[in-house]
Amino acid sequence: AAWRLRLSGLCFLLQILNILLFAVFVRYSPESSPGQCPPQWNCSRRNQDSSFQQPGFQDVHIQVLLSFGLLVAFLSRYGPGSAAISILIIAFTIQWAVLIQGFFYFFLNGKIYVGAQSMVSADFCTAAVLISTGAVLGRVNPVQMLLLSLLEVTLCTLNEYILLSLMGVSDSGRSLTVHTFGAYFGLMVSRVLYQPHKDKRKREERQDTRRQTDVFAVAGTIYLWIFWPSFTSATTVHDNAKDWAVLNTYCSLAASTVATFILSPVVYEESTPRMVQIQDAALAGMAVMGMAGEMLVTPFGALITGFLVGLISPLGFRFFTPVLHSRLKIQDTCGVHNIHGLPGILGALLGTLLALMATADTYGDRLELVFPLVAMGSRTVTDQALIQLSALPLTLLLAALGGCLTGAVLKTKVLRCSPDVQYMENTVFWEVKLGNCWYG
Amino acid sequence: AAWRLRLSGLCFLLQILNILLFAVFVRYSPESSPGQCPPQWNCSRRNQDSSFQQPGFQDVHIQVLLSFGLLVAFLSRYGPGSAAISILIIAFTIQWAVLIQGFFYFFLNGKIYVGAQSMVSADFCTAAVLISTGAVLGRVNPVQMLLLSLLEVTLCTLNEYILLSLMGVSDSGRSLTVHTFGAYFGLMVSRVLYQPHKDKRKREERQDTRRQTDVFAVAGTIYLWIFWPSFTSATTVHDNAKDWAVLNTYCSLAASTVATFILSPVVYEESTPRMVQIQDAALAGMAVMGMAGEMLVTPFGALITGFLVGLISPLGFRFFTPVLHSRLKIQDTCGVHNIHGLPGILGALLGTLLALMATADTYGDRLELVFPLVAMGSRTVTDQALIQLSALPLTLLLAALGGCLTGAVLKTKVLRCSPDVQYMENTVFWEVKLGNCWYG
Amino acid sequence: AAWRLRLSGLCFLLQILNILLFAVFVRYSPESSPGQCPPQWNCSRRNQDSSFQQPGFQDVHIQVLLSFGLLVAFLSRYGPGSAAISILIIAFTIQWAVLIQGFFYFFLNGKIYVGAQSMVSADFCTAAVLISTGAVLGRVNPVQMLLLSLLEVTLCTLNEYILLSLMGVSDSGRSLTVHTFGAYFGLMVSRVLYQPHKDKRKREERQDTRRQTDVFAVAGTIYLWIFWPSFTSATTVHDNAKDWAVLNTYCSLAASTVATFILSPVVYEESTPRMVQIQDAALAGMAVMGMAGEMLVTPFGALITGFLVGLISPLGFRFFTPVLHSRLKIQDTCGVHNIHGLPGILGALLGTLLALMATADTYGDRLELVFPLVAMGSRTVTDQALIQLSALPLTLLLAALGGCLTGAVLKTKVLRCSPDVQYMENTVFWEVKLGNCWYG
Repeated sequence: AAWRLRLSGLCFLLQILNILLFAVFVRYSPESSPGQCPPQWNCSRRNQDSSFQQPGFQDVHIQVLLSFGLLVAFLSRYGPGSAAISILIIAFTIQWAVLIQGFFYFFLNGKIYVGAQSMVSADFCTAAVLISTGAVLGRVNPVQMLLLSLLEVTLCTLNEYILLSLMGVSDSGRSLTVHTFGAYFGLMVSRVLYQPHKDKRKREERQDTRRQTDVFAVAGTIYLWIFWPSFTSATTVHDNAKDWAVLNTYCSLAASTVATFILSPVVYEESTPRMVQIQDAALAGMAVMGMAGEMLVTPFGALITGFLVGLISPLGFRFFTPVLHSRLKIQDTCGVHNIHGLPGILGALLGTLLALMATADTYGDRLELVFPLVAMGSRTVTDQALIQLSALPLTLLLAALGGCLTGAVLKTKVLRCSPDVQYMENTVFWEVKLGNCWYG
Repeated sequence: AAWRLRLSGLCFLLQILNILLFAVFVRYSPESSPGQCPPQWNCSRRNQDSSFQQPGFQDVHIQVLLSFGLLVAFLSRYGPGSAAISILIIAFTIQWAVLIQGFFYFFLNGKIYVGAQSMVSADFCTAAVLISTGAVLGRVNPVQMLLLSLLEVTLCTLNEYILLSLMGVSDSGRSLTVHTFGAYFGLMVSRVLYQPHKDKRKREERQDTRRQTDVFAVAGTIYLWIFWPSFTSATTVHDNAKDWAVLNTYCSLAASTVATFILSPVVYEESTPRMVQIQDAALAGMAVMGMAGEMLVTPFGALITGFLVGLISPLGFRFFTPVLHSRLKIQDTCGVHNIHGLPGILGALLGTLLALMATADTYGDRLELVFPLVAMGSRTVTDQALIQLSALPLTLLLAALGGCLTGAVLKTKVLRCSPDVQYMENTVFWEVKLGNCWYG
Repeated sequence: AAWRLRLSGLCFLLQILNILLFAVFVRYSPESSPGQCPPQWNCSRRNQDSSFQQPGFQDVHIQVLLSFGLLVAFLSRYGPGSAAISILIIAFTIQWAVLIQGFFYFFLNGKIYVGAQSMVSADFCTAAVLISTGAVLGRVNPVQMLLLSLLEVTLCTLNEYILLSLMGVSDSGRSLTVHTFGAYFGLMVSRVLYQPHKDKRKREERQDTRRQTDVFAVAGTIYLWIFWPSFTSATTVHDNAKDWAVLNTYCSLAASTVATFILSPVVYEESTPRMVQIQDAALAGMAVMGMAGEMLVTPFGALITGFLVGLISPLGFRFFTPVLHSRLKIQDTCGVHNIHGLPGILGALLGTLLALMATADTYGDRLELVFPLVAMGSRTVTDQALIQLSALPLTLLLAALGGCLTGAVLKTKVLRCSPDVQYMENTVFWEVKLGNCWYG
């Protein structure tokens, strides 16, 4: 009973904290009409471009789908049981991210001015948190999850600020700041929280819910196909660049899906892949287009990239995840390393390559939008490519350090399960989330 | 068999009636281009603003989601069984509402000129009807439902016309005219149709379908988060006001969701809330932002409002619904009183408060859009607030009277079940909708 | 095992082929800004209008929903089992259709220039392929399906090119080129592949999954109501014509849904129609508005058309499908003849009638958009109507010939099942797709 109230109390405290901070700091953005971002604002160039020159809120409702898209995707692995806690995480993280991102980007005269862009940034942040929880799902309790998101939002925003605002990296689809950061942060937390002997029971459960899982995976795959290409392109700066982003994402998606059908019979001895694998391929095919999407991938390059990532991701599940578990003691519940981590790294490498090949000739007006510093002449193409490349180890480092720190915090005794876990198992949700609680 | 044909015959008659009325009265709106609403048209100011100055049909497909959003939400309580009848109600009511609303708003020279705005208005009306059916679901048969929508569309349009056109109330998200009216209309019908001894069996059924229910509730919650903020904002007049409406709705949504997690362990002795409760919180968090959404709620005010409504709505389910049933003999199948009724009233009170605090200084250009009569100087802020406030008892009165009348009509003997109910139970749908038919 | 690898190998070959062809031929469309379609391009007038004068990619994400809408609809008949293969078909066909359609429409100086319009055209083509697979679902294996889409894309594009570009037929919603062509192509393939004695077991399966089926049918129906009206209208040329298309489609939808409730008790002796029937009515109500949607149907004409097609489609299921099977030896797994074939033909006839009645007076500026050749004076209204009418037998002829040819190819021995079908039945997917493989 005491335990039940602990989550309730923490939610209450955090919500009151959010309300107070909103009351003190947050105001409506003054007339979010085009071109009115005052020069003294600390808003990053890229954010400025994408929020204040766009027609406003038009696409926001599409964008805020992102975290829910991930939720839909995760349902196929853990069923509706995990949904309640995930929605709590989303509801809290969006508020918290508006605050934290506001302090970094939209802070002026002691006030945070929120608008369309705030919601979009907050939602990107929420997506990173959801990816991280995907790595530890089933082995942490809701209280720990709330604290994880509390910490990760801060670190993720810090990383994003360094990359996008200070270093001038082009990463409009957030291959690095969301997919790679979220995946390795979560894996590091999972490593710190590692406890052996807890897998067998879970696997049986999963087998059992195979049928329901397929229904959710079908829904998730359709959702991703429908909404993500426009999502990837929604933050790019102009309609022209948008065309490329949509085309590239569609090509990548189609090729990675076909690749799953090629590899599955070879690797798994099944005639057709399971729906979850198809969904994973769709996710991977999008993560890889995060950074490169608005660059000159060419339709054919997008097909090849999607094809490769569609081959690598299932191979990762088959050969790499067991090694991670047995050698490095990292459990990865939803396989985020294969779906977000590896494709994110590949996407960053692809983005570096494309930045190196960018010329004013092939990009035209687009150069100003995709690589503004290069177009202004304050940076050569080689410099830009080096900076894109150096952003990758930096992100990995920050993710690993942040994950260690967060894991250490979550491991403190006060956050562990109370002993009376058994009675909790009666309720459906705790059966999934706390039932296989890992602290004896 | 005769009974089966009765529904079929009624549908046939109503559809032929609709076709005839459409043939006589309905024409395409002449060039729904901006600013061409002829002055002699009887279209309300608000409708004129929102339909004829907007880019046209651009957002209509989003708006017509409303009634289907409610359908998705109701599925989590009654499963796919209730869907067939609900879709019939939607299909009929949209046609009927185009006609009735056309007579009030778009009537000129003996013709109704339909366009984007007609579909949106018709859909608002359909939403009110669906909310009302939520109160009586499982205790009326399809024939009665059709008659209920036939009557409610007329009364709901009358109420809307008085409030929006005659009194000049600002209610762009329809807190009063859809949520409050629909809820209390349905509750009143439920009161008139009250029959004891019919609850036990239903409750067992519901327990039984718990798992499937959760799947639908997850889908419903995701649907509401994705589509409703843009829905609430879609009828507001300009993009600037739209920004506020989206932000306010998101904040309200997030806070009401967290509030559910706070209260559930205290009230229900469960560790995490069930998905249905989370979905209800999302619905309530939106209903409360109906009227106030486009006003200067401030992000922090939206958080507090959402938080309060997220606390009040589950408390209503726990303590108020049983009292309604035992003392006032009102059964409320889907709990519309807690999800739509109470939040709608709170939203109206909040709208009154914000109207009282509106100044040209804080609203700027927005004042003309949100409170046009105040901006034109023909009404003081205090007058506007009083009118907003007086719209609440008027709506309650009209809903109660209309509900009584409709209930009395539905109670007539000719509409009751035929005695051979048993054989109907074989088909899945009637098991849910007619099987627990209340006339022994 | 050899069989498993055959699908894998074919996917690999086709994907590599696509990548190579993309590398050689496909380039980004040069600045898809308005009005820049060079005159020497071989792009059809209609395509030119709808792609290069529209705001670009804005609605594409909605349009690419089409094929997934069909997928969602088919799920209700075959459950998630059929989804894996359908998604493979979609992923391959979209790439292939970009190539084939590119050769017909966007070919210049040896390169295909892809843009928003390419994706939309490719998706229309994919929809036709999915409709055809709906006729043979459960009786062909994945390898055959891939070859079917390979051939059908070519033939479908040829038909579309003849109709839209050479003959100047107005068919923006593709009643003829997608719905009619896809349905009769699939039926002809089904006729050629006909094998007796294979139905009994399938019907039992279907009964068994009734409950799950209903869940998918609810989802499919909601999906169609939400997305299809804006889909039908998305390819029309200007916002003004769009208004009509949306209104017509909504009216048709509503009336066909009510019609299902009228006929079902009479024909099936059930009190309410099953969800699948309601979904079929929605599909039929849209297919019939494909060609006529942007014309002057009038709201009342749309109601009547939807009503009639809502009556004809269930009658077709009841009386026509058994006759097709027993007399003409055509099995129609998903009933595409009643959902796409008949409504498509009716839509073409309606389009002819409306073309005959078109006058500059009633259409105004719209005439130029809907019937450009008539507006330019190079064709009389009667000519246009005759051409619209003659497109119907031409489409039927091409579909029948193409279906025969494709069926003959698929019937070759090398494509049939290997004898070790039994072990395949263990996996869920093959149970549905290959388990009732028809070649003993």
